Parts: sequence; C-alpha cells; structure tokens
Amino acid sequence: MSSAKYDVLGIGNAIFDVLVRTDEGFLSRHGMTKGGMALIDEARATSIYRDMGPATEMSGGSAANTIVGIANLGARAAYVGKVRDDQIGRLYTHDIRAAGVAFETKPANDGPATGCSYILVTPDGERTMNTYLGAAQDLTPDDIDPSQIAASRVIYLEGYLWDPKNAKDSFVKAATIAHDAGRQVALTLSDSFCVDRYRGEFLDLMRNGTVDLVFANEAELRSLYETSDFDTALKQLRVDTKLGVVTRSEKGCVVASKDRVVAGAGVSD
Amino acid sequence: MSSAKYDVLGIGNAIFDVLVRTDEGFLSRHGMTKGGMALIDEARATSIYRDMGPATEMSGGSAANTIVGIANLGARAAYVGKVRDDQIGRLYTHDIRAAGVAFETKPANDGPATGCSYILVTPDGERTMNTYLGAAQDLTPDDIDPSQIAASRVIYLEGYLWDPKNAKDSFVKAATIAHDAGRQVALTLSDSFCVDRYRGEFLDLMRNGTVDLVFANEAELRSLYETSDFDTALKQLRVDTKLGVVTRSEKGCVVASKDRVVAGAGVSD
Repeated sequence: MSSAKYDVLGIGNAIFDVLVRTDEGFLSRHGMTKGGMALIDEARATSIYRDMGPATEMSGGSAANTIVGIANLGARAAYVGKVRDDQIGRLYTHDIRAAGVAFETKPANDGPATGCSYILVTPDGERTMNTYLGAAQDLTPDDIDPSQIAASRVIYLEGYLWDPKNAKDSFVKAATIAHDAGRQVALTLSDSFCVDRYRGEFLDLMRNGTVDLVFANEAELRSLYETSDFDTALKQLRVDTKLGVVTRSEKGCVVASKDRVVAGAGVSD
Repeated sequence: MSSAKYDVLGIGNAIFDVLVRTDEGFLSRHGMTKGGMALIDEARATSIYRDMGPATEMSGGSAANTIVGIANLGARAAYVGKVRDDQIGRLYTHDIRAAGVAFETKPANDGPATGCSYILVTPDGERTMNTYLGAAQDLTPDDIDPSQIAASRVIYLEGYLWDPKNAKDSFVKAATIAHDAGRQVALTLSDSFCVDRYRGEFLDLMRNGTVDLVFANEAELRSLYETSDFDTALKQLRVDTKLGVVTRSEKGCVVASKDRVVAGAGVSD
C-alpha cells in the first residue's frame, strides 16, 4: 500500500443551503415532517421558495460539511460531488476549496442547476430540509478518479448518495478501487428517513464488505434494525460491520467492533 | 396630493453580500482600508474572492437594507434597484419581495452579473466592503416608474448611487417626479468615503432643494463640511437642508431643522 495523499476523501451530494427562520405553521402548511430531509422536485422547490422569507445561503451537503470539518482539524481532505457550472456552482466550488479541500469534480455543463436545500429553522432550533438534488443527480462513475481514490486512506460515503439514480454506481466503483488499494471505506447513514428508504441496501453494503466503517446516530441505528432497543441494535451492528461509530447526543458516542465496545462521553451528535 | 400607496420607496445599488470572517493580515495583504467600502472591478473581485475563505451570502445594499428594515416595522415599502436575470439576481429578487417590499425593477438581460460585495469581517466586528457594482451600473431613468414614485410619501436615495455613471440621472428624475407630486426626498450620505468622492454634488443637491431630508452619521457629516467640529458641521447642515438626521452611535441621534435641534438618546448608528 503506497503512502496516502489524502487522509479522507468524501463523496456526496453537493448541495447549496438556503436557510430561513420560520415558524411551525410554515411546516404544517407545506406538509413538512419537522427535522426531516425531504427530496423535492423543481415544482415543489419553486412553491416552497416562493413562500419563504428572506434567506441566507451557504454551501452545504452532508459529506461535504464533514469533509470541511475534517480539513479544519488539519487533515488532508478531498471531496467528490457534482455541481453545475452556474453561479451557485461557482460559489460552492469556491467555498469547499477555500476550506482547504481538494475538489476536482468536473461541473456539469448542462442539465439541472446546482442542487439546493431549503432549510427551515424553527424557533426551537430544529432544521427541516427540503432538498432539490439538481446537478447532484448527475454524478456518474466517470467522476470517480481511480488514482485519487487509491491515494486516500479513508473513503467517506454518505447514505444520501442512494437518492440520485446514478450515484450509487459511483459509490460502488469508489469502494472497489479503495479496497483494491488496501484502503478503508466508511458510510454515514445520513438520516433515519434515508435509512428507511434504503435499509436493505445499506445492510447489504455492510454484510458484503463494501463498507468497513459505519457512522450513525441513535435514530438511524434504530431505524436500520427496526428496533427501539439500543443494545439490540448495537449488537446487530457489531455482527454486520467491522467498526461502528454511534453518536448519542448528550450521552456521548459508542465505538463498537466485533470484539470491543468503547463508550466515550461528551461527543455530540 | 393623492393618498400614498407606499410610505417609503428606496432607490439604491442592489448588491448581494458575500461575507467571510478573516484577520487583519488579509486586509493589509490586499491593501484594503479597514471599515471602508471600496469599489472594485471584475479582476480585483476575482483576486480577492480567490483568497477569501468559505463564505455565507445574503442580499444587501445600503438603501435596500434600510427599506427591508422599514418594511419589518410595518411600513408599506418599495425598492428600485438593478440586478441581472441570473441566479444571484433571482435570490436577490426573492429576498426583498419576501421581506414584504414591492420590487418591480426589470432585471438586466445582458451585461455584467448581479453586483456583489465581498465583506471581510475582522475579529473586532468591523466590516470592510469591496463592492463590484455589476448590473447595478445599469440602472437608468427608464427604471423609474413615475406613477410609483408619485405614489410614495418619501423617496429614499443612497449616496452610493453617485458611483454608477447612469444612476444619478435616475436619482434626479425620481426627485423631480416626487416633488411635482408633493412628496419628500431623502438622501443618506452612505459613508464618509462616498461623501469625500461627491462632496460638491451632495451639497448642490441639498442647496438646490433636490433633497429635503439628509441622513448622516458623524463621520459623514464631518466629511461633508470638512471639519472635525461636530457643532460647526451641524450648524451648516441646518443652513443647507430642511431636515437633517445625524446618528451618533452611543450618543444617540440629533434631528435638526432650520429652527429646532432635538437630540435623542439610545439610537445607534
């Protein structure tokens, strides 16, 4: 195994966040599930945005946010995700590179605009996300550069990649290249609704060894094993994956392998 | 005088703010005057943005921010400013309308992109602005709708409108229509550097009655009359304008007419 150029390479849906403070009434009027992430089409995006107040914007995306956090901690980080060559795509490209992350995915020249998420922040601080995937749908296996994958110690994949039709092929291609190069593959389950959509496939990825390391919070883990009992779920996780990391909000976090469980406090979800 | 449809109509440079936290070193490396607003061309915009960290964005512009504030207070407000029909122009249009402000200015179909300001926020909270006017340069007298102006009790104009070449004609056209309809015209001096650029013209506007009401902070007022003595400057202001409002940060604010001066406390600049 050659020495790594990157500590972590993330692959995810490149999404521009459009944030607005609102009240609970807005969520119910638009039939939104509070705290969830719903996929929306262009028509619904237009309808929601029309009713939203003045917003602020920033680059986002689940894996991208994690990768930026990792870069801030001093690690060598890279990201793969699809934007369009539009104004918002250029803002996105600026932001992730400015965070010190290598980002070389070619932007789409046509097709839908850069993806965005309309994020409603209610007075209790809860965020309800409505995501229009846009150009993120066009991530294909051609966007996976084998030499870059092979040069990364850990590949970090987000569960949300199961939403766009073509992205899962990119996911599997990256995982295969990584393993061939002796690297590790991590999966974050993204959110409990996402787990609900792809439970069988996520379990397959874990059981057939496509992923080595699984990140989840309690709700995602419970959804994965369809149980309300944390210990039962954790036991199954240890059977299904080499290493699991479960965040438990104020209860800290649990790191579990086949032969060991270590609980640490003070790590928030 | 017919009854008014709007309490205040603002005319200004429509600018999208790109904000980033940075250190003092960034300002000196780029030769920026801390706390100022510098006009930049596209080449300098590119060079500054390339060095900036990950940013957050929101719609801005001096008069637009004031108008949004006025709408939040419950007044009927309108805004005139030029964006391009690009993604950022559409974000801008959304935001100002979502704030309850009537905004009907036709976006530019060609020419430069929607204007933006790269705003560097240093650890002391000071904001240093670098503004690329973009489409704001293309505001012309054709964008002034006589019936809308005549239907507004007060027209609020920003000093920054003296920067784009054609905007001052729009400014004068609006002021003329407003006065013909028996309305009031207000001018904000924008910033002390702006006053320094257009001192003579601003004084002319005040002395020839194009504006009735002048808003300034202490630094702008001192710059206008090129004096460090506040009382001397205030005396001259009372000669030159019907009504002046001077904000003085923690010292509150002073409202001065020909025959009266009222000082109020607790109004921040």
